[in-house]
Amino acid sequence: MEALFWTLVLFSQVLGVVSVILLATWLSEYGGGYDWDCGNGVGSYHYLLLTIGMVFLYAEAMISFRVTHRLGLSYTAEKAIHATIQSIVVVLVGIGVHAAFVCKDTQGPEKAGKDLYSLHSWLGLATIIVFFGQWIYGIVMTVALRKLDRSWQDLLLPNHAFFGILIFAMSICSCLTGVNEMAIFFVENYNQIVPSGHLANAFGLCLIAFAAVTAYVAYKPDFQIPENRRHPECNAVPTSEGIATSGSGKVVTNPTEHAHQKYGATEETAFKEMDERETKEV
Amino acid sequence: MEALFWTLVLFSQVLGVVSVILLATWLSEYGGGYDWDCGNGVGSYHYLLLTIGMVFLYAEAMISFRVTHRLGLSYTAEKAIHATIQSIVVVLVGIGVHAAFVCKDTQGPEKAGKDLYSLHSWLGLATIIVFFGQWIYGIVMTVALRKLDRSWQDLLLPNHAFFGILIFAMSICSCLTGVNEMAIFFVENYNQIVPSGHLANAFGLCLIAFAAVTAYVAYKPDFQIPENRRHPECNAVPTSEGIATSGSGKVVTNPTEHAHQKYGATEETAFKEMDERETKEV
Repeated sequence: MEALFWTLVLFSQVLGVVSVILLATWLSEYGGGYDWDCGNGVGSYHYLLLTIGMVFLYAEAMISFRVTHRLGLSYTAEKAIHATIQSIVVVLVGIGVHAAFVCKDTQGPEKAGKDLYSLHSWLGLATIIVFFGQWIYGIVMTVALRKLDRSWQDLLLPNHAFFGILIFAMSICSCLTGVNEMAIFFVENYNQIVPSGHLANAFGLCLIAFAAVTAYVAYKPDFQIPENRRHPECNAVPTSEGIATSGSGKVVTNPTEHAHQKYGATEETAFKEMDERETKEV
Repeated sequence: MEALFWTLVLFSQVLGVVSVILLATWLSEYGGGYDWDCGNGVGSYHYLLLTIGMVFLYAEAMISFRVTHRLGLSYTAEKAIHATIQSIVVVLVGIGVHAAFVCKDTQGPEKAGKDLYSLHSWLGLATIIVFFGQWIYGIVMTVALRKLDRSWQDLLLPNHAFFGILIFAMSICSCLTGVNEMAIFFVENYNQIVPSGHLANAFGLCLIAFAAVTAYVAYKPDFQIPENRRHPECNAVPTSEGIATSGSGKVVTNPTEHAHQKYGATEETAFKEMDERETKEV
């Protein structure tokens, strides 16, 4: 199962890098190139930065806990990496959205000020609003988690995870409507089956494939890590793959043969099982 | 928790119906109306049937097990309802895709035969291919499940569930790129902030909200039902909400106070816990 995990992670990285290369190439060759003056009215930076931020890096943050835990990092380091990546995304989103508005405003009175009319822009705005909410929620949760009891944690964490996947899906929708829009506006004879159209379409499908593989890595219960590593008092809890964590988060060998039947599932279960065990012990 | 479940289900239905009404109104008022001759080149049936099929009905099938189980239906009836809805979707997809091609071919030599050039069409085609694969997979799984041992079931079911959500997300992406495309082609002065543009955009956002709420209902572990109802030999297993099922799938009161800590999580856990208990009992 660990071999499958790493294979899928590697595959996702290849798809992610190929997606970004396809987009960058398309923008350079057919989308008007890169300039802050938006010479050809494209605002390439908007498309590139938002895709790198809200899709590629966002996905990295989404699967980061499962990857970093297997590398033996401490729980604090895992959280710091997740939070750092998402904060970089916030910066990229800020610059990327600014590029879109700057671009419009340099295109003369005909286009200046006519912002937020398309479905792509409404979707993108909704995605960014929910994303910022989630980012704040993540920070508050991190601060509050240590002070709240576990029933609150059980409520907060699965919702954070659900909104994480939802925002990711919304980002993909925003990207695809954006590329679709761009292809219609900028690909000459789009309906004549031309290479520049194919390149834009291939980018879209590659992005979907990247999203599917990373979402699978984030979803699959067998890839789950023990969430009770947040509580140093709960040591040596086995997972589905024979990994056990001590309070420091180091990976050690799993001594219990059937342990995956108890801890291989979801965060909630791991938590509740621990609670149950502790209650019995008390 | 049951009150939250039914509130969200009701809310999702309202969003779904509003989405379909928004689309039907838009198609009627601004999208060229309904005719198989595609008078205005829109092929309204394509958009309407695919949205009703691949989004609205598909979502109903996605959450159907959680709803029908609470209504006290037998496991066989639950499966029959899920399979029937998905089969209706297959028929609607067939007619809807045919409408798109018929439409193109009635628009004269300039447009005839120029199919599958846009990102929307590539995405839609990919979605339909994966959906048909999943439909076949569902049928094969249903036939095979009763003959395979549980390690196979553990492998097959979570993948069916994952691909279910993935296809749903891809359907939403296909719809949004389709509406985006249509709005660009058919809304006059789309960038002048006009009502017909707002209606198309509102449909898009409403669809996203519908997708988010139904996906939440399908995802939330607390809403889980005991998957071991597939096996009549495993009776009276409690769930997170004090519901227990007998072999007939009838809902009865949960006698065990902490039982949700053992059975409230995922399919996999419920299965494995049952296996474990059975092994011990043997």
